[in-house]
Amino acid sequence: MKRIVLLTLLHVIAVTSSAFGQQDSLMLDKIYHESFYNGEAYDNLRYLTKEIGNRIAGSPNADKAVIWSKGLMQKMDFDQVYLQDVQLPYWDRGPQEKAYIIDSKEPLTVLALGGSVATPPQGLEAEVIEVELLSDLKKHGDQVRGKIVFINKPWDESIVETGVAYGLNSSQRSRGPSESAKLGAVAFLFRSLSSSRADDFPHTGGTGYIKGIDSIPAMAISAVSAIKLSKALKANPTAKVYLEQHSSWKGVRHTHNVIAEWKGTQSPEKIITIGGHIDSWDVGEGAHDNGTGTMGTLDAIRTLMALGYKPKHTIRLVFYMNEENGVHGASAYGQVAKDKNEQIVAAIESDAGGFAPRGFDIKASADRVAWIQEHWKPLFEQKFWVSRFLQGSPGVDSGVWGRHFPNTIMFNFRPDPHRYFDLHHTAKDVFEAVDKRELQSGVAAIAALLYLVDQQIDQL
Amino acid sequence: MKRIVLLTLLHVIAVTSSAFGQQDSLMLDKIYHESFYNGEAYDNLRYLTKEIGNRIAGSPNADKAVIWSKGLMQKMDFDQVYLQDVQLPYWDRGPQEKAYIIDSKEPLTVLALGGSVATPPQGLEAEVIEVELLSDLKKHGDQVRGKIVFINKPWDESIVETGVAYGLNSSQRSRGPSESAKLGAVAFLFRSLSSSRADDFPHTGGTGYIKGIDSIPAMAISAVSAIKLSKALKANPTAKVYLEQHSSWKGVRHTHNVIAEWKGTQSPEKIITIGGHIDSWDVGEGAHDNGTGTMGTLDAIRTLMALGYKPKHTIRLVFYMNEENGVHGASAYGQVAKDKNEQIVAAIESDAGGFAPRGFDIKASADRVAWIQEHWKPLFEQKFWVSRFLQGSPGVDSGVWGRHFPNTIMFNFRPDPHRYFDLHHTAKDVFEAVDKRELQSGVAAIAALLYLVDQQIDQL
Repeated sequence: MKRIVLLTLLHVIAVTSSAFGQQDSLMLDKIYHESFYNGEAYDNLRYLTKEIGNRIAGSPNADKAVIWSKGLMQKMDFDQVYLQDVQLPYWDRGPQEKAYIIDSKEPLTVLALGGSVATPPQGLEAEVIEVELLSDLKKHGDQVRGKIVFINKPWDESIVETGVAYGLNSSQRSRGPSESAKLGAVAFLFRSLSSSRADDFPHTGGTGYIKGIDSIPAMAISAVSAIKLSKALKANPTAKVYLEQHSSWKGVRHTHNVIAEWKGTQSPEKIITIGGHIDSWDVGEGAHDNGTGTMGTLDAIRTLMALGYKPKHTIRLVFYMNEENGVHGASAYGQVAKDKNEQIVAAIESDAGGFAPRGFDIKASADRVAWIQEHWKPLFEQKFWVSRFLQGSPGVDSGVWGRHFPNTIMFNFRPDPHRYFDLHHTAKDVFEAVDKRELQSGVAAIAALLYLVDQQIDQL
Repeated sequence: MKRIVLLTLLHVIAVTSSAFGQQDSLMLDKIYHESFYNGEAYDNLRYLTKEIGNRIAGSPNADKAVIWSKGLMQKMDFDQVYLQDVQLPYWDRGPQEKAYIIDSKEPLTVLALGGSVATPPQGLEAEVIEVELLSDLKKHGDQVRGKIVFINKPWDESIVETGVAYGLNSSQRSRGPSESAKLGAVAFLFRSLSSSRADDFPHTGGTGYIKGIDSIPAMAISAVSAIKLSKALKANPTAKVYLEQHSSWKGVRHTHNVIAEWKGTQSPEKIITIGGHIDSWDVGEGAHDNGTGTMGTLDAIRTLMALGYKPKHTIRLVFYMNEENGVHGASAYGQVAKDKNEQIVAAIESDAGGFAPRGFDIKASADRVAWIQEHWKPLFEQKFWVSRFLQGSPGVDSGVWGRHFPNTIMFNFRPDPHRYFDLHHTAKDVFEAVDKRELQSGVAAIAALLYLVDQQIDQL
């Protein structure tokens, strides 16, 4: 008898959970249909990239992007749309950089690193000391003085997950100028973080200075130019290089995060944050980084709204300002949320491009990740080709505000990684590099995750 | 005591299998490194697409591709390289097609379907009868007589696996001309199998005629032109369309499959076939279809050779002729293998493009697929982002010769499906549409699978 009761109970559970699974599966079908047929991410991205363009935090373009995206949100069925104050220092590149090898007049393709000081207006000339690692500099001792430090560390092309290869080299970009200046260097030249040896575009990115140490000009050099320069230095170790850049910090600007709220019908006090950064570097058009992330998360919400969905929890869309060079937007967001003692139960961030969706990294306990693998992955895997649900790090913005919210489960959208670091932080990151079908497939994956989080976060 | 013995035994098995797993894992690392650093698929593809170009079976270009790829194989460490005779009828498109709506002179972008007969040299003019499905034609009865049948079935854009959407519509392309001619139609116009409504490129592809029924000219019309024509017909149902094409069958040509063998060191009589088709349609450059499949499988073998690998089984590379319009190459291959009573233990085919690798469809029993999921998938999934190992269909060529080899386990390489049907069978399928990193990542995945098949097929 007991056994019969147990079996009946198991049967009820199985039927219920399968009915739930079926309902979710039907909802995912509707989400994908809506995104592929009526998705607006691609057209919005065209406007953001082509009509506004690149938009470094503090720039007039960044302000335009804030006003325009607030307008987009206001046309939708949000309960509230507002700007959140963010103050930040504004860095401006100034006129185009120049660089060449003095004796051969061979040009080198370069970009100032974000945050760098300028060279003297008439440029600078110096010999070059080439190393792979900053830690190799010390053994050159006094030889560094008066020279340009040239970090020529190749990218590990054998790593499929390009973000991992990026991580292996990127800390040298931020630490390099001060480490070099400590030893008397006059400038810092950094091999671009590019996934291809054949790439002649320089990749910019943030750098910084340690207080009390001379600030020296810092530039990224393309992989092709780095290889060329290295060859020239082998032929003539005392070859000199000319560098000229005019970048500068322009003081504090008052900017904004853009926020929209869709009020929960059951637990409005519990918040799910979703979004990405609206700023970009000041080259290219900031298409994959991060036009796709903002326009994609916006369109994920539009997708659910178009289907008549009513969220249980409050869904809060945040376009963060200044992820690229300071993360002041996410800091401001975190401070306000902390001061208000908000309950942020989950966060979804998109800041890894608009390529074909592969899954989500999840900042959560192994148990919770296992639960998601068991319950959600089967909804995506075979039919929608989304299968990566692994424990991992949150996005940069969520990571920053998340310091105040250590228990919030965080999802980091993972599109295919193969092509991202070919164009990351370069003039190549333009609208034309985004495929509409890949983008809208990602929108659908994000919308589907948002739906599942809203429905089932309390069971997790 | 028994229990201790059992535990010890289990321990030994666990350690052994983990040691094997570790060895395989190290080999996969080497394979990926070799492919990303020294891969030749991309450069070979450049030659095939740019120096030779598109290569429909029977054409001078197809012959050039045969001679050139035989030369590539001869430079490698194969034990044998040879051409296998294939006879096939040669279809030639002739001068460019023309099509427009007569009264408005609105041009329509069209391509003759492969195998089609010509219109009269001066073209033809007729009214149009538009349906979504061939099965709808019958209800129009006598109205079909003297008209152009226009199949305007939209693509289901909500299906992520684009090959499935293709399959939903493609049988109408092959059956259409005869089904239409039966009812007296004078020509057949078929909405292109394109994954985008916004695509103004026509997509060609094979069609055919049933003996004893009039052969009428058959053309593909781009999605954009199909939508335009449909609109024009709604405004004026008796609007006439002008069609002109000059294609024809040119008689039998003597062509070849290109085959190379790398002799097994342990069981040379057991053969693993790997390859793809070397022919293409006669528009674009046949880059994704199927330059990447041939140059990719060749480079997968080069990768193993470069690592000093010695195969247990004989690895046979086959570049099949004529997958696109007749599959005569695969038929010839199958006939010879059958006549020789060969032992083909496994087959790998690549014919779905050179996009980021996602996995392999496997034609095998559910048990064998489960074994592969358990033993091989973990080697690929987290590190190399290859995770799709599902029971499924073989490639077209393997499927054809496989009729003689029903027990051969067959692997069908599956790259990301999002972009393939934007360019499939069009002028857009060119070298520039292939990303080097995605291609070489696929080469590595195929080389890794080939290695595992060779090592472990006998355990499967």
